[in-house]
Formats: sequence, structure tokens, C-alpha cells
Amino acid sequence: MFGKIIDQTREHPSLVHCITNYVTMHDCANMVLACGSSPIMANAKEEVEEVTSICNSLVINIGTLNTGTIDSMILAGQKANELGHPVVLDPVGAGVSAWRRKTVTQLLQEVRFSVIKGNISEIKTVFAGSGAAMGVDAQAADAVSEENLNETIELARKLSIQTGSVIVITGAIDLVVSAARTYIIENGHPMMARITGSGCMLAVLMGAYVGSCQNQIQEAAAAAVIAEGICGEKAAKRVREEKCGTGSFGIYLIDEMSRLTGQEAEARKKVRIKER
Amino acid sequence: MFGKIIDQTREHPSLVHCITNYVTMHDCANMVLACGSSPIMANAKEEVEEVTSICNSLVINIGTLNTGTIDSMILAGQKANELGHPVVLDPVGAGVSAWRRKTVTQLLQEVRFSVIKGNISEIKTVFAGSGAAMGVDAQAADAVSEENLNETIELARKLSIQTGSVIVITGAIDLVVSAARTYIIENGHPMMARITGSGCMLAVLMGAYVGSCQNQIQEAAAAAVIAEGICGEKAAKRVREEKCGTGSFGIYLIDEMSRLTGQEAEARKKVRIKER
Amino acid sequence: MFGKIIDQTREHPSLVHCITNYVTMHDCANMVLACGSSPIMANAKEEVEEVTSICNSLVINIGTLNTGTIDSMILAGQKANELGHPVVLDPVGAGVSAWRRKTVTQLLQEVRFSVIKGNISEIKTVFAGSGAAMGVDAQAADAVSEENLNETIELARKLSIQTGSVIVITGAIDLVVSAARTYIIENGHPMMARITGSGCMLAVLMGAYVGSCQNQIQEAAAAAVIAEGICGEKAAKRVREEKCGTGSFGIYLIDEMSRLTGQEAEARKKVRIKER
Repeated sequence: MFGKIIDQTREHPSLVHCITNYVTMHDCANMVLACGSSPIMANAKEEVEEVTSICNSLVINIGTLNTGTIDSMILAGQKANELGHPVVLDPVGAGVSAWRRKTVTQLLQEVRFSVIKGNISEIKTVFAGSGAAMGVDAQAADAVSEENLNETIELARKLSIQTGSVIVITGAIDLVVSAARTYIIENGHPMMARITGSGCMLAVLMGAYVGSCQNQIQEAAAAAVIAEGICGEKAAKRVREEKCGTGSFGIYLIDEMSRLTGQEAEARKKVRIKER
Repeated sequence: MFGKIIDQTREHPSLVHCITNYVTMHDCANMVLACGSSPIMANAKEEVEEVTSICNSLVINIGTLNTGTIDSMILAGQKANELGHPVVLDPVGAGVSAWRRKTVTQLLQEVRFSVIKGNISEIKTVFAGSGAAMGVDAQAADAVSEENLNETIELARKLSIQTGSVIVITGAIDLVVSAARTYIIENGHPMMARITGSGCMLAVLMGAYVGSCQNQIQEAAAAAVIAEGICGEKAAKRVREEKCGTGSFGIYLIDEMSRLTGQEAEARKKVRIKER
Repeated sequence: MFGKIIDQTREHPSLVHCITNYVTMHDCANMVLACGSSPIMANAKEEVEEVTSICNSLVINIGTLNTGTIDSMILAGQKANELGHPVVLDPVGAGVSAWRRKTVTQLLQEVRFSVIKGNISEIKTVFAGSGAAMGVDAQAADAVSEENLNETIELARKLSIQTGSVIVITGAIDLVVSAARTYIIENGHPMMARITGSGCMLAVLMGAYVGSCQNQIQEAAAAAVIAEGICGEKAAKRVREEKCGTGSFGIYLIDEMSRLTGQEAEARKKVRIKER
């Protein structure tokens, strides 16, 4: 299933509209190209609705937010909703300022997201901003582990029910959660946290996969987590063998994505399914 | 001739003012440095005229347009015109929105360009925006091929006469067209389309070459097409041999440019000349 | 001492707030990560004070200045001053326009900097903008050499006394100057000038080191110069051996930083101390 999504995205590429941060835009564009799709990075309010209309999916990343771009995110998001295009939210650094928290709340009110992806701290901020009571689960440990797995899934499940979005929590263990089921994924490598952009690239990869496989949103999101994780493992192996470092790792991550096949993903995936 | 332009740019480097998009700015700066010149990326209206005055050429790329930058493009373009500096236009994604089409029209009205470079679809949009009747040639196939070569050249020639610019149409076959002659270039590699920035880098490379060789605008534009094409071929060969991927390809493209000599370019160039 | 600063930054990572230019943001984020710290790139005036409050240091780089960002630089700088966080200024291209010169003057009036780092021409512009008489020393040759070493140090010393900042002048010879002493550093490689971002990465590396070693500002700034210089030497050696080019050099520079130890830095450092 995941392998098929990866192959289908190469056979039927999507056009992915990315309203994303300035730091990792270049990585994001290359990641979308590496998986076989095409990116359009456009964030001026004069054109975002028209641009999104010719695309298959939209990705919104708040990493380097500014006032003008918030309007563009909402305009593009609402147009994508109207057209039935899947929309991915990456609430980067959602908790670093009151203004970002407010922006996340506003985005959740104005736009329906197919997928919301973040680390545990970002997802908790989204949960808080959604107006729901924070409860004890929001006090859960700051990294997903076997010990707190069930309570973290329960947190994500609540947020999924409330928002209607697939919730993805990234970490050493990655969770892809809907009301009905959870994919627990253990691909990936710690070096992914030592370069900028791993998370941003994951969001646009999800944008590509959900754009090409619109009837399998949760599975497409999980396929992106698996695919990037496997590429991270292979890139880290090359770095170890060549005794190089994090600069090369970032380049090799794109290299591996440009060569990844569905078959290899199926063979290397580390995924458990937990049905509700 | 082309080799001489490449060497002359290293011996007499130009300072290239780039008002370009945020996605590939970094690639563009490194490409200008790799060919032996120096870039200045400055796009605030408070300083673009002064910055352009100390440069040798100006490159305008509309890839991530926003309202403020349009003013800067016009201010810088008019100052460069006044000073007789060559100006290159890269109308990236010109057709993706009505607002970009309008911006291209405005730029063509307010600034005289030495070179306009785009893929066939972008060039057609420029042609439409120029106010000329679209005619049948604008319906030409979407990729330049031996079959539609003559009609594509004729389209470009009309646009060249009308705008006074050298017209460059990129694709599997690249055309560098003026009223008097056309260079038909077949260097390059398909992998260039699988990374972001190949086209943007070509535009700033043209900026560097026309800046250093101001009396040979058409030949300098052709030299840039040839040079980047050869670097693409060599980079693709390394990728094949090392079994890596598109991440490495982007890095190797800069590597090759930093080592390219005029002599090698002359030996590897694949160019035909068609006189009017 | 320098080695200890490098190791201490890995053991007690700082969070570095970077208000920097769009061209090299990505390099800067990866450099901060490579030395063991974490970057936050945020430049919206709505959040910069709050963001800086949760960080350990602030770096301000004027490479792609625009009106809105100047306000953010001042707001963040004043908040950092209030909280006693070290602040690094990188006055990129300070002399290219009257507006940049005015901005540098304004920044110097409104914010106290722990470190000001630039090439000789940028530092002279800062010196002129500071309102001091230019005197003959400002006419000093445009590159630091053994011949003009003493007069360049004297220029930097005056600026240091006047601003209360450590002054770093980069070139073939690098100087790290306070009222009391000067570190004269000869690590580095000419290839560092053939990629974009070497200087910007040095500034954020200083941000990381001064953030983690707040009681040794001058030594931390010198450690950054030494560390990046050594990484440049090692990266250039790899480029020579592999016969590649400047694209790979940029990647290898990050590779080397991600592996550099304090011990290696101590063994390879080329530094003289000149006490007042």
C-alpha cells in the first residue's frame, strides 16, 4: 500500500503549492522534485488563490511567518477547501510566540486541514489553540516513547476527531493518527534532526503524496513518513561509510529520495498498525 | 568565441545585481561566483538604484513576486537602462496567474531588456503580454523539437524584433534568437529539470557573461546556455558513475562551473548557427 | 581555551536567534546545527522580542535589508540588551548604499553589540557611521597584510573602545580586537571567498559560541574564526583530492564543522596574541 503510493506519485505527479518558510524553501522544492512531483512556491495574496487552483494540493508552513503571508495562507487554504484539494499544515515552532499561537488558532478556524504534522510540542500547542481543555495528556513527556505511546496516541486521536485532520507526531517514533487507526513508524535516523529542513521536507512530501493519492490521505501521510525515514537511514549509512558529516547528509537525503522505489519502501518499512 | 566569453568573464569579472526569487537565490549566488563573477542580491526599493549603479549588469527573476519587489524591479531596471547596463529578464512561471502576466506586461513597458529567457510556455506568455496578435505560431507545440524548430524560431524572432531583446527559449533544444541569427544549442541533460534552480542559475550566468562582454550580448547569452549545458552533462555523468541522485547533481553542477574553461567549452559545445 | 569553547558549545548548546539575510539563511541554520547549537530564524516584529527572550544570543545580518526588518532588528536588539544576551552584528555590504550606511548608524545608536564582524571595507563603513573622525587609518589598504597590520589593529581598537564591542576584521589574516588585546588568526582558505555565505556562517557561529560562553566574548569570537578557518582548510583539501569544486566545498565546510573537536582545533589553530 505504501509502496504503491510512492510509485503512483511518480506515475501521476502532482503539482504542490507550497506556502513555506524562507529557510528551507529550496530543500522543499528539491524534495518535491525528488519524489517525482513539481512544486510551486508562491505566497503573494494577489495570486495564491489562482495558483492553488491549478495545483493538486497545498502545504502551509509557518516557520518564518509575517503578516502578509498569513492572509495568503488563509486565502489559499479556503480556495483549496472549496476545490476539495488536500491541505497540509506544518505548525513550525508554533509555541515560540503568542503571535504564532494566535496564528495557528486562526488558521484552524478558517481552513480545514487534511493533515497536521508537527513534533509533540508543536502538536500540543495546536491542541491548546484549538480551544479544547488541555487535560493531563497535554502534560505528556516531550518525546514519544514506548512508555507514553498510548497516551500520546489518545491525545492525537482527540485532536483528529476535533479537527477532522490526520494528525502526525514526529520523533524517534512517528505516529500517523486518525479516529479509526494509528500507524506507528520507526524508520528514520537521529541525524535528520541535525540538519535544518527535515520536518519541512516531510510536510511537502506529504503534500505530494496526498496530492497524487487523494482517497488515501492517512496512508499517503504515513507513506511520506516511511519514505523520508528510509532515505534518512540510507543517507546516514553513506555518511558513516564516507566519514563525512551533516552537510553531505542533507544532500544524500535528496539523492535517496530521487531513487527510492515503492518496492524498496515496502521491504524496509518499519510500521505497526493499531486499530481503534 | 564562446570559450573566449567564458574566459573573459573570469579575467574581468562583473558585479551582477540579482533581483531574484527566494527559492533559488542561494544557488544563483553560488553560480555567479562559480563562473568567476560576484553577485549582489538586493531588492529593497530604498537602495536598488544605487546598488545597480555600481554593478555591471542586472537580472530580474519574477519567481516569487510580491508587490514591493515589482517597484524595485522597475526602479532598478530603469536605472540600468539609463546607465547602459545589460538587463536580463527571467519571467519564471509567467503564466501561473493573471497578476504575473500583468507584471510581465508592465515590466516590458517600463524596462528595456537585453535578454529575455524562458521555456516555451513562459516565452509565449511574454509574447501574448506584449500586445502582439497571438497568431498560430503561439499554438506551437509545448516543447521545442526538430519538427517545430522553424516556427518556434520565427515566433522568437518576432518577439526579438518587437522588444529589441535577444530571446532565449530553453528546452531539450535551446534557442538563442535575434533578428539576424539563431544559435541552436543541444548541450544539457534531462536531470537539469529534476532540480530547482537550473533556469534561474542560467539567467544569472547570462547576467555575468553579458556584464563582462557587453558588446556581444547574443553570444554571451549563448555562451551561458552552452556552459551550463556542458556542466549539466558532466554532473550527470558523475551522478551515474557514483549511483547517487538529484541532491548531488545540484552540487556537482556548481562544481563543474567552478572548473570550466573556455577551451573545454569550445571542445564540447553542440551548436548550430542559422543566419536569417 | 579555544578548544574548550568549541567543546562547551556542544555540551551546553545555545539557542541562537538569527535575523539574517535570505540568501544564506539555510547555510546559517545548518552551520549553527553543525556546531551543536540550535537556530531560530524569526524576523517579524510581532514576535522578535519574545523569540529573543527564549534564546541565548542574537545575530543581526543586514545582507538583504528591508524596511520592516530594520524595526525587528532594533526591537530584538534592545530586548537582548535588556536581558544581557550577547548580540553579534554582521554589517554585510554596509557600504553599497546610503540607506545601508544610515541603517548601520541607526543600529549602532539603538543597540549595543558584543561583536561587530566584517571585512575591512565593511568595518571602515561602520567606523565612518559611528561619527568618529575618519583620520588616516581609515585610508588603510583594503586587505589586511603584515605591512598594514598595526594600523589596522589600531583602527579596530579605536572602534572597539568607542562601541564597547569586540571588533572582528576578516580577510587572509583575521583580527579579533578589543581594547586590551588582539588575536591574529591565519587559519582559513581562499576558497571560502568563492562560495556565498562564509562570512554569514561565521557570524552565526560566533552567535553560538558567545551564547554558550557568555563570559568570554572575545575568545568565543576568536574560536569561531579559528573553527571555521580550520574547517575551510580541511574542506579545501578534500576538494583538491577529489578534484571537485566550489559546490562540494560549501557542503564539506558544514561536514567538517559537524565533526570538529576542541582537541583538533587546538592542534591546528594558527593564532598569535598581541597584548596592548
